[in-house]
Amino acid sequence: MEIIKKKLAIFGSTGSIGRQTLDVVRAHPDRFEVIALSAGQNLSLLSTQIQEFKPEYISYTRRDNNQPGKGNKFLEPVEIAALPEVDIVVVASAGVSGLVPTLAAAKAGKTIALANKETLVMAGGLVTQSVADGEARLFPVDSEHSAIWQCLQGEETFPARLFLTASGGPFRHFTLEQLEKVTPEQALKHPTWQMGKKITIDSATLINKGLEIIEAHHFFDVPFENIEVVVHPECVIHSMVEFPDGTVKAQLGCPDMRIPIQYALSYPERLNSNQFPRLDLTRMVKLTFETPDESVFPGLKIAREAGEKGGTYPAVLVGADEAAVGLFLEHKISFNDIPRVIEETLSVHTPTASPPSLEEIIFAENWARSKALHVASGARI
Amino acid sequence: MEIIKKKLAIFGSTGSIGRQTLDVVRAHPDRFEVIALSAGQNLSLLSTQIQEFKPEYISYTRRDNNQPGKGNKFLEPVEIAALPEVDIVVVASAGVSGLVPTLAAAKAGKTIALANKETLVMAGGLVTQSVADGEARLFPVDSEHSAIWQCLQGEETFPARLFLTASGGPFRHFTLEQLEKVTPEQALKHPTWQMGKKITIDSATLINKGLEIIEAHHFFDVPFENIEVVVHPECVIHSMVEFPDGTVKAQLGCPDMRIPIQYALSYPERLNSNQFPRLDLTRMVKLTFETPDESVFPGLKIAREAGEKGGTYPAVLVGADEAAVGLFLEHKISFNDIPRVIEETLSVHTPTASPPSLEEIIFAENWARSKALHVASGARI
Repeated sequence: MEIIKKKLAIFGSTGSIGRQTLDVVRAHPDRFEVIALSAGQNLSLLSTQIQEFKPEYISYTRRDNNQPGKGNKFLEPVEIAALPEVDIVVVASAGVSGLVPTLAAAKAGKTIALANKETLVMAGGLVTQSVADGEARLFPVDSEHSAIWQCLQGEETFPARLFLTASGGPFRHFTLEQLEKVTPEQALKHPTWQMGKKITIDSATLINKGLEIIEAHHFFDVPFENIEVVVHPECVIHSMVEFPDGTVKAQLGCPDMRIPIQYALSYPERLNSNQFPRLDLTRMVKLTFETPDESVFPGLKIAREAGEKGGTYPAVLVGADEAAVGLFLEHKISFNDIPRVIEETLSVHTPTASPPSLEEIIFAENWARSKALHVASGARI
Repeated sequence: MEIIKKKLAIFGSTGSIGRQTLDVVRAHPDRFEVIALSAGQNLSLLSTQIQEFKPEYISYTRRDNNQPGKGNKFLEPVEIAALPEVDIVVVASAGVSGLVPTLAAAKAGKTIALANKETLVMAGGLVTQSVADGEARLFPVDSEHSAIWQCLQGEETFPARLFLTASGGPFRHFTLEQLEKVTPEQALKHPTWQMGKKITIDSATLINKGLEIIEAHHFFDVPFENIEVVVHPECVIHSMVEFPDGTVKAQLGCPDMRIPIQYALSYPERLNSNQFPRLDLTRMVKLTFETPDESVFPGLKIAREAGEKGGTYPAVLVGADEAAVGLFLEHKISFNDIPRVIEETLSVHTPTASPPSLEEIIFAENWARSKALHVASGARI
């Protein structure tokens, strides 16, 4: 049987998920081929990637005197997402910048491997509608959502509940008083996962898990009240699904993002991952579980409620969180100020009529980003 | 949509699995209908079941003056297994008696829900060949094999390894010296599962897990070297599958056999199990895992090796174990004598040319049963 190489366009190729996606391509050069690379600011790494993977098309945000890839065709992100020869569009760009390429890929009927959380959080309704209209396919890359997706394979009965597992972050069992004093440096030390700065802080506040609740709601069409969070510090079980017959399925593995990335690319097949670390079940000793403490980590509840309200609230959540995390990283607000700033920003938001348009979503996210800075200047007193 | 009731023939209806199968029918009278009930010796319970479920056909082994079910048609087990109106044949009879009805159901192209372990252990090759020839379907009922089967749903990639979980039985962490003194009464107290006597003793010796290795080998066509046993005392994870990409899927639930029984009957759909106890994942605190100690529980290794040798060895394993467990329950040999008797019986067996015929398998099992008694009389010195 001849194996046809899948042709990839990768958005955010210089970020953490982008680089790991290229690791997967490196491990399976007979299966995947890079057609397009798109990055933001890190032009020197993009140049190196271009030399190694020789994509036909490239894209980048930053303009300076040393533009990379003079031999490649430069296209705008929306053009790359719709290239006829592309099979899979990997959306690994950070923050809001993943939204527009995702919508373009959906319209073009592509298979989308979505690693960008904000896209579904802010515009879940729009994206799932575009995917349906364009007869596209939307596959999760996040380890939790990949786990749920994997547990749902071959099941024809709608799940009763989803259980998102959470590491609990570096400050599990901290009190509010202890949290008040934590520094960005401490918060950036995640116990198990190596990730970008923003998502690492979001993990420490548990706001990341709140965003994942909203993401799971859109990915799997499960009502918010049937999505639970379980703290599981060993990070071996990546998430679980409960079915109406009481059966629970769980997906386990090493905390290595290359596994879910590879699954999204190779689906429905599974390729070997001999070059990546593997879970040794014969040495597994103990898995523990706790209930998250929302009185100490209110961000989880705030994010869930923004998701339940819907409309432009999730976009405000994303914008306010982006701003608050930025301020915390600059030592301008405390760790506990992050959820406070977000909550206050959400409380002064005037929602638009539901469902919001793309413009309204982007506007709300922008509004929240500036409003949060304003709110924070008060919170800093 | 009109729901068509599935028509069941249940072998071993008065045993533990048979009674729980009828619980499932009771919980879903709109989905299942009992066409035939077949039992062994417990005619008074069979009479009660006949009154409640009104099967058209019945069968039983014991003959006495008070025959049950005078208004029902009496058929031999092989006739019941092949009844045209039957959709699913549940084989829950104990020991060797499950083999012939299973083969008859396979030839008749039925869906077989197989709870009888000995059938596949002794005659795995014959049964899987008959299932293929008859275009029948063979579904597992055992919680471990059901878990593996569930984890394989929707997967097109062959599994890398199967992990059968084991409770460890009531004597986990015992020394050989302590085991020498345990009584049948102690051995019959299983920490989590309510089962028949024979299987409860087999669980205590870990021979049950060895039989399950052989069963898993035939159910899923996975080589013996890729089937591992993990002791997991909480009995929450019922088994796990590892795939070539390093992903592991696990199936979790309450230790209640009605869940896997129901799944085998409702497959591929899942029905609710509101009437059965449910696992509360939000209260789950800890799952632990250990390696089984084969120096203290040699039965596991003995059983695995009999499976690997194949031919008539697994039938000898079944026969010798049946006899040895019987002697232990009668206080005639010690707990540690059980694997000794089995090992010695296996060591004096002259295998027939492989693959063995049905006659050779039944003969080997019978031979082993008497030979084990003989061996034990020496072991008792």
